[in-house]
Amino acid sequence: MARITCIGTGNVGRAWAVVFARAGHAVALYDAQPDLALNVAMPRIRRTLKELAEAMPTGETAEAVASRIEVHATIADAVRNADYVQESVREDVAVKRSVFAEIADAAPHQCLLASSTSALPGSAFLSAIVHPERAFVAHPVNPPSHIPLVELCGTGATSAEALGAAQNLLSAAGMEPIIVRKEIDGFILNRLQYTMVAEAMHLIGEGYCTAEDIDRVVTSGLALRWASIGPFMTAHLNATGGFAGFVEQLGPMMKRMGQDAKTDYDWGPQQVAEIHEWLASQLPVDDIAEAQAWRDRRILATRAMQKSDDGVGKAKKPEPETF
Amino acid sequence: MARITCIGTGNVGRAWAVVFARAGHAVALYDAQPDLALNVAMPRIRRTLKELAEAMPTGETAEAVASRIEVHATIADAVRNADYVQESVREDVAVKRSVFAEIADAAPHQCLLASSTSALPGSAFLSAIVHPERAFVAHPVNPPSHIPLVELCGTGATSAEALGAAQNLLSAAGMEPIIVRKEIDGFILNRLQYTMVAEAMHLIGEGYCTAEDIDRVVTSGLALRWASIGPFMTAHLNATGGFAGFVEQLGPMMKRMGQDAKTDYDWGPQQVAEIHEWLASQLPVDDIAEAQAWRDRRILATRAMQKSDDGVGKAKKPEPETF
Repeated sequence: MARITCIGTGNVGRAWAVVFARAGHAVALYDAQPDLALNVAMPRIRRTLKELAEAMPTGETAEAVASRIEVHATIADAVRNADYVQESVREDVAVKRSVFAEIADAAPHQCLLASSTSALPGSAFLSAIVHPERAFVAHPVNPPSHIPLVELCGTGATSAEALGAAQNLLSAAGMEPIIVRKEIDGFILNRLQYTMVAEAMHLIGEGYCTAEDIDRVVTSGLALRWASIGPFMTAHLNATGGFAGFVEQLGPMMKRMGQDAKTDYDWGPQQVAEIHEWLASQLPVDDIAEAQAWRDRRILATRAMQKSDDGVGKAKKPEPETF
Repeated sequence: MARITCIGTGNVGRAWAVVFARAGHAVALYDAQPDLALNVAMPRIRRTLKELAEAMPTGETAEAVASRIEVHATIADAVRNADYVQESVREDVAVKRSVFAEIADAAPHQCLLASSTSALPGSAFLSAIVHPERAFVAHPVNPPSHIPLVELCGTGATSAEALGAAQNLLSAAGMEPIIVRKEIDGFILNRLQYTMVAEAMHLIGEGYCTAEDIDRVVTSGLALRWASIGPFMTAHLNATGGFAGFVEQLGPMMKRMGQDAKTDYDWGPQQVAEIHEWLASQLPVDDIAEAQAWRDRRILATRAMQKSDDGVGKAKKPEPETF
């Protein structure tokens, strides 16, 4: 059991508190508005813990888990004995700098310091703190209480030991961290996602298909494989010679598709309005909050489906007898 | 009940026969090597029918379904009374031209004529036949017995009526057809897939991450949403203002990711070899055939998961009470 501090109690910070508390850790919670942490964040955290206790039981009640979360009134109090701090405040480099200066001064020197930033390079606010070798980005997918992927990315100053320790701690908490080896805008997940969306915007904009078609291609086509195996294992299974054989046969097609893609397509407001209109006809904007809860239940259903096969689908080594 | 003819009994042709027979249609099967159709294709079709009878029961036994499939010795015999012909022969434009000339001459004039091609534009071999208005591409995802998405694409000569009738027939058979409005290399699914893979090859080639990381980002990140909702509905649910609000906040990031993507990245054999080595360490090439069967079972598990929520996740109109 480690002592974890979550700084910031928005959607992301609350979900992190859920992750760490469910993993058995003691969680110190801090928000610049302490009454928000107590009166808004804690009730929502309890609700999420209840939902997860049903959908992905750990053997503990939601209340038992919640009892390990404690709200603190200052950053210094919250981080004083911490082993790991996860910051999830506003995406503003000046705010992050100031918060991390305070965290770094008050936390033990060996305490790991992680930022949830998705929009900023960690080096912009983590390099100048006391002991910068312990600080890095741990970029979650929202909400990390439901989606296990985490992208760890060091600054130039981060030590390999700190990243390794974070990887161990997060894996033990049920997350699936990858290490991004150099800073890059958008990290990996958003680059993949928005590269595909960019080509989709091109195909829609040039009249080949609609946004509805794109969504159907993904849910009724691509994702039926990707829910169990990623794009590289998919290719490996698509040729008798494995990936090398696949590239031998279809490498020219792969290169052609990449060269033909127009991911810099300059879509405009009219195209956005038409897509929004279709989406709103399927799901009115007023129903989005409820639909988010539905989406999160579907995420858990997909994870349960994945686990029903012992995770073989997640590009781990398949046991021969499984096949 | 319609009379469907499947020309070609490779992986794709066999899977089409399974789709149409399970939907209650009479299926005429033809292969240039009639003994292959009888002695290789039919036993494999029976095996797939048995697996599907367990995983996605229709109320009929596999044998009852198989009894509706009949092997014919000539194309003329196979298509003489057909309502719909699905061609799945070799991806060779001269072969397709010759096969479609024969089909078009012998089939009734109102019979729909579909090609499974994934690599050729339909106009290259469907425009010059007798009654070209009834001919189009119906590009499946392999295997169509398990993956419902189909991409319909007309040539310049195809009538809207033919495409509409094909859409109805395929939908009634449990498939999910989209209509690609203009010919485009790779149609939609492969363009999306290989645009994302191209950016992944760039990120791996430039040392940001590994192929293992990419596969994990997809299975433990992106696909947890995409198994239920496509990328546009995902964005719609990610902002209180829906898609329009999402683009207002994150449009600049979307454009930046698209502009920064290097989908024309010139990956080489060394990179392919390294990726193959990792994949083969996870799944030896000798185990691929067994792994394909496992993958197809996972596809059915994912579809069962999707259906467990009445298909709300597939960008259909959600019923308010579901939320």
